[in-house]
Amino acid sequence: MITSNGGPTERIRVTEVRSDRSVEREDEAAAEEPLEIRVVPGEVDRAGLYQIAVTLRTPGSDFELAVGFLFSEGLLRTAEDVTRIAYCTDPGELQHHNIVNVSLAVGVPFDRERFRRNFYSTSSCGVCGKAALDQIRAKVDRPPVGRFRIPSETLESLPGRITSAQRVFDRTGGLHAAALFRPEGDLLLLREDVGRHNALDKLVGNRFLAGSLPDSNTVLLVSGRAGFELVQKAAVAGIPFLAAIGAPSSLAIALAREQGMTLVGFLREGRFNIYCGQDRVAL
Amino acid sequence: MITSNGGPTERIRVTEVRSDRSVEREDEAAAEEPLEIRVVPGEVDRAGLYQIAVTLRTPGSDFELAVGFLFSEGLLRTAEDVTRIAYCTDPGELQHHNIVNVSLAVGVPFDRERFRRNFYSTSSCGVCGKAALDQIRAKVDRPPVGRFRIPSETLESLPGRITSAQRVFDRTGGLHAAALFRPEGDLLLLREDVGRHNALDKLVGNRFLAGSLPDSNTVLLVSGRAGFELVQKAAVAGIPFLAAIGAPSSLAIALAREQGMTLVGFLREGRFNIYCGQDRVAL
Repeated sequence: MITSNGGPTERIRVTEVRSDRSVEREDEAAAEEPLEIRVVPGEVDRAGLYQIAVTLRTPGSDFELAVGFLFSEGLLRTAEDVTRIAYCTDPGELQHHNIVNVSLAVGVPFDRERFRRNFYSTSSCGVCGKAALDQIRAKVDRPPVGRFRIPSETLESLPGRITSAQRVFDRTGGLHAAALFRPEGDLLLLREDVGRHNALDKLVGNRFLAGSLPDSNTVLLVSGRAGFELVQKAAVAGIPFLAAIGAPSSLAIALAREQGMTLVGFLREGRFNIYCGQDRVAL
Repeated sequence: MITSNGGPTERIRVTEVRSDRSVEREDEAAAEEPLEIRVVPGEVDRAGLYQIAVTLRTPGSDFELAVGFLFSEGLLRTAEDVTRIAYCTDPGELQHHNIVNVSLAVGVPFDRERFRRNFYSTSSCGVCGKAALDQIRAKVDRPPVGRFRIPSETLESLPGRITSAQRVFDRTGGLHAAALFRPEGDLLLLREDVGRHNALDKLVGNRFLAGSLPDSNTVLLVSGRAGFELVQKAAVAGIPFLAAIGAPSSLAIALAREQGMTLVGFLREGRFNIYCGQDRVAL
């Protein structure tokens, strides 16, 4: 069932219906394939591979996605924690472009139990619930800092800047984007994916590998809505400013406020909403 | 940090910027809170609770969400498999509206190992990868059947019908919707959530509890894009027709085709695309 050319799009057949006339033609769809992320601990006494997650992603920037995810989860702290990133090269492994192994340096702690989180048993309801809710709470060591101010006209111009850079989206209409800007409006980096969390993990992974984190002098723009997890990933990366084309959730606002971040929603030409951190916007 | 009134929206303060004039006012945001889903097995020799998942959802229809999720994962088959659905009522549990316990009837199989999937270790790459990729493959016993035809004008009218019914979305702009229609265009059920998978799980959970599955004589409409997991959930529920306002992914198209389903994307007044199963649309 899973056929792949390993690229960000795939050729498909589609019947286009327009005002009751239908035409069959070739088109492109955003590619979606599973990526398995594994960790190889650095300790010699702990041989083996540990599967951390399987995510449905658009192929491309897979190494960035893997380390960006692991960094967001608190498993990696600096680029030196990683000694090797590689696709699985086992002979006979048909899915080798869908499996990434991340090798940790000796001494990097790897807590097996922390990643066992999808399953445990207990007879005590209270303890159980607390553990589960703690799991989704912020993994942020230090709140982001960032003392810049972005003019409102610059802020309003950002969505137009990613639209012109979003080449795969242009062809498929099916990708989310995460883009990093300087407060002056310069585009530093753009990543796309069928999943909005993946797009941000790819972006954060790139900055992680470049040694650029915490990214305190940047503004992050996401193409969709701003949920809790996107704010959390931005906070962990030290990005103090998150702007979304769509709406924020209640928990996203609460976390951004708690972390001293700026959160902007419904961003478009001529209008936007500020939910917290208004001092970083020059009106 | 998590403050909640238990409802689908929360009151927030927002600074609205419009053409360089800013106004501070009260607004509503879509509520987002963690829900922990637990299973209580029916076997007397296996006491205890098993945490299956924690999802960030919009409060409301929580019991439907819990059983819809468990049904999609293949843990439940019929409404008789469930003897009780309840919020956690432990004294001292502050988060009791964010924890749902689902009790299984005696004899309903509960395979602990299947839900251990986020973590395992091995020294063999090949086996490991195969297991992971199988995890995301279809859990569908039988492909959906459904021999109806929906006129293209009826199909094009469906997005307008959910817009008028989406009350929380109207107030917040922050919710995804999943809606079930008869092929004649009658709206059977609408569910909203900050997460698109949650919206569909709530809808499927409602139909599951009503004993209406497989839902072969229905058309499912989702407000966003059609990814693999949405097609999979529809297939498991026996829904043969999925229409999306947004774009489909390559893997969504592949699975819909494999299951003999109809997949429509970019649905709006006067136009849409058919990716497979064209025989269920009367042009």
